[in-house]
Parts: sequence; structure tokens; C-alpha cells
Amino acid sequence: MSRCKIGVGLLGMGTVGRGVYRILMENQALIEQKVGLPVKVKKILVRDVTKDRGFKVEEGLLTDNAGDILDSPDIDVVVEVLGGIRPALDYSLQALKRGKSLVTANKDMIAEHGRELFEAAAANGCDLLFEGSVGGGIPIIRPLKECLAANRIHKIMGIINGTTNYMLTMMSREGLDFQSVLREAQALGYAEADPGADIGGYDAARKLVILASIAFNTRIALDKVYVEGITRITAEDIRYAAELNYVVKLLAIAKESEEGIEVRVHPALLPKNHPLASVNDVYNAIFVSGDAVGDVMFFGRGAGEMPTASAVVADVMNAARNLIKKVPGIISCTCFEEKPVKPMGLTSTKYYIRLKVADKPGVLAGIAFVLGSNEVSLASVIQKHTDGKFAEIVLVTHEVLERNLQDALRIIKELSTVNEISNVIRVEGE
Amino acid sequence: MSRCKIGVGLLGMGTVGRGVYRILMENQALIEQKVGLPVKVKKILVRDVTKDRGFKVEEGLLTDNAGDILDSPDIDVVVEVLGGIRPALDYSLQALKRGKSLVTANKDMIAEHGRELFEAAAANGCDLLFEGSVGGGIPIIRPLKECLAANRIHKIMGIINGTTNYMLTMMSREGLDFQSVLREAQALGYAEADPGADIGGYDAARKLVILASIAFNTRIALDKVYVEGITRITAEDIRYAAELNYVVKLLAIAKESEEGIEVRVHPALLPKNHPLASVNDVYNAIFVSGDAVGDVMFFGRGAGEMPTASAVVADVMNAARNLIKKVPGIISCTCFEEKPVKPMGLTSTKYYIRLKVADKPGVLAGIAFVLGSNEVSLASVIQKHTDGKFAEIVLVTHEVLERNLQDALRIIKELSTVNEISNVIRVEGE
Repeated sequence: MSRCKIGVGLLGMGTVGRGVYRILMENQALIEQKVGLPVKVKKILVRDVTKDRGFKVEEGLLTDNAGDILDSPDIDVVVEVLGGIRPALDYSLQALKRGKSLVTANKDMIAEHGRELFEAAAANGCDLLFEGSVGGGIPIIRPLKECLAANRIHKIMGIINGTTNYMLTMMSREGLDFQSVLREAQALGYAEADPGADIGGYDAARKLVILASIAFNTRIALDKVYVEGITRITAEDIRYAAELNYVVKLLAIAKESEEGIEVRVHPALLPKNHPLASVNDVYNAIFVSGDAVGDVMFFGRGAGEMPTASAVVADVMNAARNLIKKVPGIISCTCFEEKPVKPMGLTSTKYYIRLKVADKPGVLAGIAFVLGSNEVSLASVIQKHTDGKFAEIVLVTHEVLERNLQDALRIIKELSTVNEISNVIRVEGE
Repeated sequence: MSRCKIGVGLLGMGTVGRGVYRILMENQALIEQKVGLPVKVKKILVRDVTKDRGFKVEEGLLTDNAGDILDSPDIDVVVEVLGGIRPALDYSLQALKRGKSLVTANKDMIAEHGRELFEAAAANGCDLLFEGSVGGGIPIIRPLKECLAANRIHKIMGIINGTTNYMLTMMSREGLDFQSVLREAQALGYAEADPGADIGGYDAARKLVILASIAFNTRIALDKVYVEGITRITAEDIRYAAELNYVVKLLAIAKESEEGIEVRVHPALLPKNHPLASVNDVYNAIFVSGDAVGDVMFFGRGAGEMPTASAVVADVMNAARNLIKKVPGIISCTCFEEKPVKPMGLTSTKYYIRLKVADKPGVLAGIAFVLGSNEVSLASVIQKHTDGKFAEIVLVTHEVLERNLQDALRIIKELSTVNEISNVIRVEGE
């Protein structure tokens, strides 16, 4: 069978779906030139076909019946932009089982059900492409899979959640506290009404699972990721960090070591001169270290209608080309190995520790003694007298085993001279 | 014919060739897993097979006869890492004509002879891959061709020459002058004994031609690029730039407009908060703006044995996969159109102008009058009295037509109150 066009079915017409439709319409001549055949949207699944969408959709494209897409012989590539797990996963599996190539920007689905999806894609010889699932329009999945394929990747470190990066940038720029910045981000549409997945670090964790699985050729389970959000970061922490020449970022880190793969999402102090430190507002960036390439970084808008749609349509074009050449699935899943995840207690970083202590002689010495006896050594100390009764101490440690630090903190918390451990934040990128 | 391995022939064993050989040896298990078959170096062309290379090359691989590679039925992929035009071009064309896939990191050859090479690749159904020709190991060619394929690209702006970026970084960091930084760069091996191609901007121009041809789907001829090097940049310019909140970088810029494609390489003042401004030392970065994706940036080491070899081996792996699936050339040349290059006189930028003038009243007014009558308006002015006889004036204009600025400068140069126009540098990124 020789094709004369590539038929596309869109599952969903939300923000990203709208962008995908727009690009496929507006840049159709360019896309046809590059692919070799016209790429046409044949059907779009929506909940309500009568709803006013604020822009023109070609006559007859909308349907509320998924079967019009999944069962149609005219549709070669299915684009899943529904989001969430149900019914996206069922539809996606059905599409693959019927031999259709699948393009998705659904990080939840890929992170939680990657294995089933890749198995279905392989069994049916289909493409399963998901560039839009991490970093919006930033090219990162394909570069990792292809351009950096000759490298053993050592480490990935990224700012991969735009909402929290916007919030931390505002806190740092305006000296505002967490709650007022959250309200502002919600008002601007940068944070959702229920911001839990973003500020809790779970959105970043899903994206990290996808990146780490590709980088280290092993499937990382989402529940193995250590996740800590930004809710405990205060204006004081950001001010002290600045004083020490750091910025505070929510980092997603994956690192290979002999004891397994480290996968963790948490706020961190980053030196001001680190390339990731100047990634501000809703921008994302992913820093990758490989044995041959050294350090490379990918930067751009990590979300939004058009950036994410840019990645989705690029995937559609690749799927189309592969269909025309009869090689769908030419680059498939690369999780060849089964590597363990390293227990968090065995990871090592530097730490920033902020404490409220009694303002009297010998307090710092007592704390330093506990740290020292747990093999935690100090790199710098700031002590500020606040009100004569309490003092604030900020410590930065040298690199130390997480386990040792936690042991020390448990003891320090019980010291009669310590009023509270106000915050503990990792220090990265040095 | 079903293959049981992919045979690679290396043309050249210089810096990059050595890196390619090392990666193919050290990461061979990983590469085989990803490609699906072993990828084996079968022959390496060198000038002198007896020379001590300081590391072990497998018995029987070295040859001084190109025919052992170009005529061998065991070799599927030819890697050209000789550099320069002759004999690299002849060998490359021969390889393609014999149906071998070609991987090269040779920017001179691709920039100057791209058309012949792409035609030979298309005529013989071969892959012609050249990720290593721009930005060392930074993924940029494939991301432009594939990941950003759905976009109309508006603009590319890059720091794509490591030598000059190192030199400008040192001048800015240490306040040193051009000549002493050049000597230092030469001593460190960052600049060649004959540094002309780097400091004159010609190396960047070649890379820009490659990027622009892909981004705008039209072949850009090297001699159409406006090229200005960094030799006239002084410590004073960098100091004044800093005072005005700029850094000085050698930029390669390609931009689409109605009058054609702008392609230019020149030093420029860049605002300190621009993402490219913090790209320092030998690092490169390429900033791309597209209609859907917005701004994305790619950052990394722009040269060197292992980074460039990382890109070359990734291309070898792609060529290998395409051979196994019998789809070499699946993504071919994308220069579908013939777009004109915009004459430099019609480009618009802001300008920084440094002048030495007589230190007396009315001088600035006279200069401002000439600028104004040529439609050049001023954004800021710094005036410093130097020695009572002369004063130094630094002007920054608003955006203005190059042609108008040049007209104004011709008149200003002749003013009796103007001792010299010390420097004129474009201002970008605002």
C-alpha cells in the first residue's frame, strides 16, 4: 500500500491539543515539505462537540466517540493530549494494539505506565513518541536517545517545573514569602488552583523518571524517587542563600553510582555562577553530563500551549516519516537493564542548615560537636543575633552522607540550647 | 542481505578521530545494545602507519591507502575526520558514490560544498550526517532538523567559536588586552598558532552557514555572510560595556525577514541578563527562536576531542540503525527553497560607538546633530574627560538602519572636533 497522506487523530482539545491543531494547520506546507506527504488532522475527540472553543475547527472533525479515531483506517498517528491516566492509557494502548503510532505529551502516563506502553508499541511495531512530556518544547528526549547515545550519562540535573521556578524566582527577586507568591502565580495562571503536584515536587518527579529511564537505560519506578517540594522554603532561606552566593532552585537530579541510580527531587542551593542558576521565571533547563560530551544544557519554556505543541508536532512528523519509510519503532525503548535505585541514606551532598538557638556562649560549639561526631564537617557558618534571647545560625556542611546528617540532626533537635531546626536544604552544583 | 555487524572506516586519526575510536572501543557494548548490531572500526586512514600515537590501536587497522576504506565491501559507514577541503571532499564524494553512509565533523567542507555532498548522498540513497560540524558535542543539527521541525524558525543567535569566547571572557574577567589574551590562549592550546580563522570570525561564519541553511530551508553561500572578527575589541570597550550593563561576545546571527535572510558574524554587546551572556570560557551556546517553541538554547563544549567525537559517534549510530532498517537518507537535505540574503545595509541593530573628541563645549551636540539628521537616535551617552585635551564619548543608539549609521559615521569622521572613531560595535539581544 502506498500512502498519499498521513492521517492524524487528536485525543483531546485542551491547551496542548489546540496548539497541535494550530501548528498542523498554520505550518502545513512546511510540514508536508519536510515529511514528504500531507499530514492531515482527520478527527478530534472532545467531550462536547457543541462547545464554543473560541476558534474555528474544520467542519466534521470533532467527535465525542473515541472509536472514530481508534477504529478508523484513515488514521495513522494518534496524538494523546487528554492528560491524566484514565481514559488516556486505555485509548493509547488500544491505538498501539491497532498498529497506530502514538504521540503523547502525557508525563503521568509515561512515568507510571511506560512499561505497558512500550511493550505494546514493540509488540505491534509502532512508534511511541513523547518529546512533549518533559520540558515542553525543549528538545531533550530525542537528544538523549540519539544525539548523546554514544555517551555513558553520569548525571542529569534539571529545573523541570515551571510553576515552582517562577515562584522561587519571584521570592528571590521581590523578597516575598511563599504564600503570597503562590497566590500571585495562581492569579497569573502559572499555578493551578490545586498546586500540590507542582509545589510538592511530584510533577518534577514524573518528568525525572522519564529522563532517568532513558539516560541510564533502566526503568525507574516513580515510587522510588525521593521527593521534597518547596513549601518549606522561606524568604529568609533565600536571603541567606544569596548572602552565601547561592540561589534556591527546585532540582530534579538523577545520577549513576556503583550502589545504583540516585533519583531525587528537592529544593537546593546552587552557586550563582552555575548555568542552571540563571534559569528564571517559568523557564526550564536540563543539564546533562556524559563521559564523552562533558556538560551540555538544554533550555527553554517548559510548558504552555505552543511550546509543548511544537514538540508534539515534531513527534508526529517523525512518526509520519517512519510510516512512509515503513520503519515505525526504529528507535524504541532503551531500558535494557535492571539497575537498582540507591537508598537515599547513601547519597552524599552538602547541606545548608538554619537553626534557631539560645543566644548564649557555647551553643555553636555544642552543635558543631554533634555534627563532628557524626562525620559532618562544616564549610561555613553565619550567626545572627535576633532579639537577645534567640540567635539564628546558618551552617553549610562539606559533602556528607545523608544518613550521617540525619543522625546528627536527630541529636541536635534534642539539645536544650536548640529552639528549632528551621530548615535543611541540600547544596548542589559545586 | 542480512548484516551481522556495521563496519566503520575512519578517514583520519587526529584529535577527533582518536576520540571517535576511543568511544567506539570503550562504549562498544552500550552502542551495540542501542544499535542492534556490533559497530566495528575496520580500517583507519593515516598518513604514517608507523607513527607512535601514544595509545594502542588494534592490529591491522591502520592504512595509508584510502582505497582500503572507500573500496572495501566491509565498510558501511565512512567517518571523515581529516578536516579541510582536500582530500576530504574527494574521499567523501567517493564514499557516497559507492553507497556508503558518510559522517563528518568537517564544517569547512559542509559549509563550502554542502550542495555537491547532499546531491551525492541523495543520488546514492546514503546518509550524510554532520552533527559534529557545529558546536562540538552540543546536539543542535538533529534538534533543528527534527525536534524543532514543526516551527518556522525566526532567528538563530549563537556563540559558536570557543577560542574567541575564551579570549573575550579573559579580557572581561582580567581586564587584559587582546594581544596578551591571544598569547595566553595560544599557550593553553585554545588558539592555534595561526589564529586567523577564529579571531577573524571565519570559523563561526562556516558554522553559521550550516545552521542557517537548516533553519531557513535554503542554502546560504559562505561568501554572503557578513563577517567581522574580534581583533578591534579593546579592554576599554569591554569596560564601557560593563558600565552600561553589557558583555561583549562574538555572535553568529541568522534571521529571517521579508527582504531575505540576515547572516552575520560580529562582536556585539549583549545585556548581562541575556542567557547567552553567561556563556563563558570555551563554552558555546546556540539560541533558537521559533514561532511555536519560543526561545530555546543549547549549551555545551563547542570543541575538543571527546565532545566532538560524542556527536560523530551518535551520527555513526544513527547511520548504522538506518542501514539495518534499510532506510539510509530517511532525513535528507531540507534546503527546499531559494531565499535571498538580505544586504547588510538593510539590517537594523543598536550600536555602541566610542569616539575620541576634542574636550570642548558643543562637540557632543555636533555629533548628535549629524546622527539625528541621519535618523540615528541615541539611547545613552557616557562622556569621560581623559587628559584635558581629548575626551572619550561612548554612545549607544536606538535601533537604526546599518546604512544610515554608516552614512552618519562617514560625516562624523570628518568633523574637525572628532579625533577618531575608536570603535563601533553592534548591540544585540534586547
